[in-house]
Amino acid sequence: MAVGPATLPTFEPISGFRLGTASAGIKTPGRLDLVVMELSETASVAGVFTRNAFCAAPVTLSKKHLAAGQPRYLLTNTGNANAGTGAEGMADASGCCAKLAELVGMKPEQVLPFSTGVIGEKLPVERIYAALPAAVEALSENGWEDAASGILTTDTRPKGASCSLELNGQAVCISGISKGAGMIRPNMATMLAYVATDAKVEQADLQALLSEVAERTFNRVTIDGDTSTNDSCMLVATGASGVACAPGHPEWDQFAEAVESVLRELAQAIVRDGEGATKFVSIEVNGALDSAEALKVAYAIAHSPLVKTALFASDPNWGRILAAVGYAGVEQLDLEALKIFLGDVCIVENGGRAADYTEEQGQAVMNQEDILIRVELARGEVSETVWTTDLSKDYVTINADYRS
Amino acid sequence: MAVGPATLPTFEPISGFRLGTASAGIKTPGRLDLVVMELSETASVAGVFTRNAFCAAPVTLSKKHLAAGQPRYLLTNTGNANAGTGAEGMADASGCCAKLAELVGMKPEQVLPFSTGVIGEKLPVERIYAALPAAVEALSENGWEDAASGILTTDTRPKGASCSLELNGQAVCISGISKGAGMIRPNMATMLAYVATDAKVEQADLQALLSEVAERTFNRVTIDGDTSTNDSCMLVATGASGVACAPGHPEWDQFAEAVESVLRELAQAIVRDGEGATKFVSIEVNGALDSAEALKVAYAIAHSPLVKTALFASDPNWGRILAAVGYAGVEQLDLEALKIFLGDVCIVENGGRAADYTEEQGQAVMNQEDILIRVELARGEVSETVWTTDLSKDYVTINADYRS
Repeated sequence: MAVGPATLPTFEPISGFRLGTASAGIKTPGRLDLVVMELSETASVAGVFTRNAFCAAPVTLSKKHLAAGQPRYLLTNTGNANAGTGAEGMADASGCCAKLAELVGMKPEQVLPFSTGVIGEKLPVERIYAALPAAVEALSENGWEDAASGILTTDTRPKGASCSLELNGQAVCISGISKGAGMIRPNMATMLAYVATDAKVEQADLQALLSEVAERTFNRVTIDGDTSTNDSCMLVATGASGVACAPGHPEWDQFAEAVESVLRELAQAIVRDGEGATKFVSIEVNGALDSAEALKVAYAIAHSPLVKTALFASDPNWGRILAAVGYAGVEQLDLEALKIFLGDVCIVENGGRAADYTEEQGQAVMNQEDILIRVELARGEVSETVWTTDLSKDYVTINADYRS
Repeated sequence: MAVGPATLPTFEPISGFRLGTASAGIKTPGRLDLVVMELSETASVAGVFTRNAFCAAPVTLSKKHLAAGQPRYLLTNTGNANAGTGAEGMADASGCCAKLAELVGMKPEQVLPFSTGVIGEKLPVERIYAALPAAVEALSENGWEDAASGILTTDTRPKGASCSLELNGQAVCISGISKGAGMIRPNMATMLAYVATDAKVEQADLQALLSEVAERTFNRVTIDGDTSTNDSCMLVATGASGVACAPGHPEWDQFAEAVESVLRELAQAIVRDGEGATKFVSIEVNGALDSAEALKVAYAIAHSPLVKTALFASDPNWGRILAAVGYAGVEQLDLEALKIFLGDVCIVENGGRAADYTEEQGQAVMNQEDILIRVELARGEVSETVWTTDLSKDYVTINADYRS
């Protein structure tokens, strides 16, 4: 199941950024599961990674290689996360970097490795080595669609976003892909996302932009509250358009907003394809004293199994939302001033059910696929929004019946 | 579904504590749903209550009446939580206290009200008023079994614990009942539990004992992470045995341990009857620097939908446990020193799968109904244990198909 239309956008090719996808048979023979991305020599690269203490070997290595200077290749496999694999996992990730580097005449530290799939099994490196030449052979600026498929795990559909904009009269393009459907509560980044632009941006500016934007996009989605061992989000600026962007330039805000809209679309696409998802739920908390308490309330609702099963049932069981707000841990809540809305319908005010509320009004909102839960804390000026899904029987089936 | 045998113990009657149960037809015609408990004039009473900010009207009123001095009656209805009901809910709870007080010739503030059931619907007070005489009529020291049924909601079976012990050559009895199957992550107490003893204990000592013991029993169980609006746990000491117990007395520790064992049994019974439960899971975290970080790790595992669905599937998917430990938020975890065990089987050491581990070993543990997950943090000396259940298809069915 998934929420909303499954169509991929038409990807704007990004000059200086090529993608090649192949089938290595890592978990399932014949499926696309190996993606190589090639960056031009002039490209700036920024990355954000999981904060899970048990981060996977490829995450550790990617951070190290990114810090080392000039990455030229991103190498992604699906079907195996190479996480919880200890020293052997680190050797395997290094081996993959070395093998690709040898093929393309680079140094191993110019390759950033990424893995996604089952945790705790040995990476089948020989299959990856064997398929690398085909992936390199396939490199093309038009390789986005195949790559969008080649990074998927339990996802039911590929995810992409693309846009072009004019900065100071010159065209700049941004394209990106993402994957992820379970173990999704990113902390600093989500599962896997790759975004490229042909704008010219200094590495430090690019990293600052990505860190800030990821916080408002990928770090605001949750499916099951489980922060993965492998989350990585990469932003590449090839500079091939010749259009320079930097903070302080008049066009920077426009560029930053375009990047954010692409990341937001990719992040929301992950929620819409959440494991077993039948609803796309936005939880907006306004009137908080600070961001932390707004997020406490939003995540209490987003992670409540009782709220999530009510959403699955399209049941306007507002008492469960009220209970979640109540246990979110915000001190000295003013229950009389607090209001809760389902869509535009006020469900809670004056410490209880809103006087005008009728079950029919609540039912009408719950019957929709896209649902907004809005909490007005009436304590301050800060707002936060997170996006999540319902908890369906299929979620349990997917995670109980298959080893993922 | 539920885990383990469904038998109630033989309840030791507690002299000075009588229970009467009746059917008020609050939600389901004919079922036992109204319980009156009568305390002797000499009884001491202690209580712990939910910390949910949206606590229900009866919780607010019980706290007030308990503080006022000498409670003589506990009045419980199931089928309606009288929570999220605003000023009207408070008036309804007060009305029930007044009605019972009138019947038995007491003051309204000598009655403590408790409600459990659906949130946000008006309490049908007329039905309760009509059934009160029958409940008072039924009062008996042998009324434990009926009362154990009369407080249930989505529970599949009644829960009780009882013991007698000799203190300084004299007999003392402790009996108790509890209920709760969903919206269970008590914070200060769980859903509803009532424990009585004929020991003689000063109110302040009794309250201190209950607060301490509830922290290690009811506050260590979680089914779905949802802290209810109505959690209440009451401990009554009638003093009818004539055996005085106080901190500092040689027999106090023995008494306190007996009280704790009754509360632990009642708390664990709630987990064993968790909504859709097929497993009873103990999560033991050792070697923590402090209690807070031990609990962070334990609850990260206990609340992970991915760990819980793997438990439901009896799948030794240890990578999900490792991931939960990794995102629990403990700073500077030493991944090399950390170990994770399933039962007696070491599954994680040296940052990855234990060298000796085989899938068969993990499967043998997961096939059991009672499962121990043990994490050795190797940072300090503090241990904590929490108890939880799996996440089954039935959990979703129960909470999606019925308004509870």
